[in-house]
Amino acid sequence: MNKFIQKFSNAVKNNKSYLCVGLDTDYNLIPFKTQNIYKSVLKFNRNIIDATKDLVCCYKINSAFYEAYGIDGIKALQKTVEIIKDVPVILDAKRSDIGNSAKFYAKFGFEIINADAMTVIPYMGIDTIDVFRNYKEKFVFIVAISSNPGAKDFQEFPSKKNPIYLKIMKKCKSTDKYKNTGYVVGATYPEKIRYLREKGFKETFLIPGIGAQKGDAEKSIKYAFMRKGTGIFNISRSIIYQADKKNYFESVRQKAKQYQMMLSVE
Amino acid sequence: MNKFIQKFSNAVKNNKSYLCVGLDTDYNLIPFKTQNIYKSVLKFNRNIIDATKDLVCCYKINSAFYEAYGIDGIKALQKTVEIIKDVPVILDAKRSDIGNSAKFYAKFGFEIINADAMTVIPYMGIDTIDVFRNYKEKFVFIVAISSNPGAKDFQEFPSKKNPIYLKIMKKCKSTDKYKNTGYVVGATYPEKIRYLREKGFKETFLIPGIGAQKGDAEKSIKYAFMRKGTGIFNISRSIIYQADKKNYFESVRQKAKQYQMMLSVE
Repeated sequence: MNKFIQKFSNAVKNNKSYLCVGLDTDYNLIPFKTQNIYKSVLKFNRNIIDATKDLVCCYKINSAFYEAYGIDGIKALQKTVEIIKDVPVILDAKRSDIGNSAKFYAKFGFEIINADAMTVIPYMGIDTIDVFRNYKEKFVFIVAISSNPGAKDFQEFPSKKNPIYLKIMKKCKSTDKYKNTGYVVGATYPEKIRYLREKGFKETFLIPGIGAQKGDAEKSIKYAFMRKGTGIFNISRSIIYQADKKNYFESVRQKAKQYQMMLSVE
Repeated sequence: MNKFIQKFSNAVKNNKSYLCVGLDTDYNLIPFKTQNIYKSVLKFNRNIIDATKDLVCCYKINSAFYEAYGIDGIKALQKTVEIIKDVPVILDAKRSDIGNSAKFYAKFGFEIINADAMTVIPYMGIDTIDVFRNYKEKFVFIVAISSNPGAKDFQEFPSKKNPIYLKIMKKCKSTDKYKNTGYVVGATYPEKIRYLREKGFKETFLIPGIGAQKGDAEKSIKYAFMRKGTGIFNISRSIIYQADKKNYFESVRQKAKQYQMMLSVE
């Protein structure tokens, strides 16, 4: 069995949760920091992980937040993945390139960072996606519908009835040799989650947007689990940043607990 | 005037060249290396730069090749950009994300690496692209038509007459507030370069594929410069990797010189 699926299934079973905490740690926004970026980010992440590890089905780490701090950031990213135990890690890197280059991005995510799954942008074609999917033990989430306001600019082209994201998903599904493909579908468009389940996509959806982006949580959860589908709900800012500086990580835990209960789907 | 355009125009004038050398340096493939990845990659790049800097209009550095070697790779990437003088650097990073995350990718490329231009994947929408374009002095190349075999899978959807890449280019053009947008158009599809020039796109095209990928150089060059258009032709593997180990960097220079003459457009 695929290692990501295995770790994920165990975490869901043990923690009764479809909550994914997004470790989108911005050095500028974290409390209790020193001048040492690497140490500050890592310590913050360690505390977040300690406060949430029995409440989540996985962690998602957005590579951008770490790259923006150069060497220190990348070191903190590597070390963060190292200290996460028993729970799978999705590297949200949204990479894409022609085959010869894509293999180096896959190496970065799956070998250097050692993530269990990666997000990939599909625009460049199936051959570019397969480079990532050829890591049979790893999992790949194809960005189908993103959660930003501009998502509709191109993803719904040429029409709502015949959008490119559907073409992409059909093609990715029919070429999913190792059954290690899921899709990113933003919670800011919950009706589309339903639409896709009704279209027969039973795959695992990685669903951002029910936190700071104010997607409709109730609908998204209901639709994601329709027809034996599975949803992984990522929340980052609304969990990892808290106003209560005195009991910061206790607040983080309480907030994560609220989401975990909401996402404790039978 | 945009700093990338300025540096680029100067380099074209001084070096009489539209050749871009791709520093896609793979530690595994380079000669004369030691166990020290950082030093080996940097030394190789320094030699390539010394051998070609008066023959090029810019350098393109594919981030993937450096990320795949972790901290050592990123350090070599930073330092390589630092040692390139008077010639602009395109960081081929093919990044994309929702606004809040994209700004960190822009910071990585434009501030940490200090590139003059970056490549961006458009699928997620104009708001995600604008985060990069808001660096007014920098330049952004939108991946419209890539050079890989699978490019047609989605880029030509829903039809050759009404492809999404055209929709993307039109929308990017009409929102190009700071006139700092160009497009990646693969030389493996030269007729499309002509088609786009005929459609009125006069912007600068970054054109990969006339080297190792065997795109049609003659046609691509002719079409790229049609109707006052400008083409930047990237060649990587066929220049930086040479069989002649004895006079390695002299061979690199000779090969680059051949391409520069081909790309010495009046």
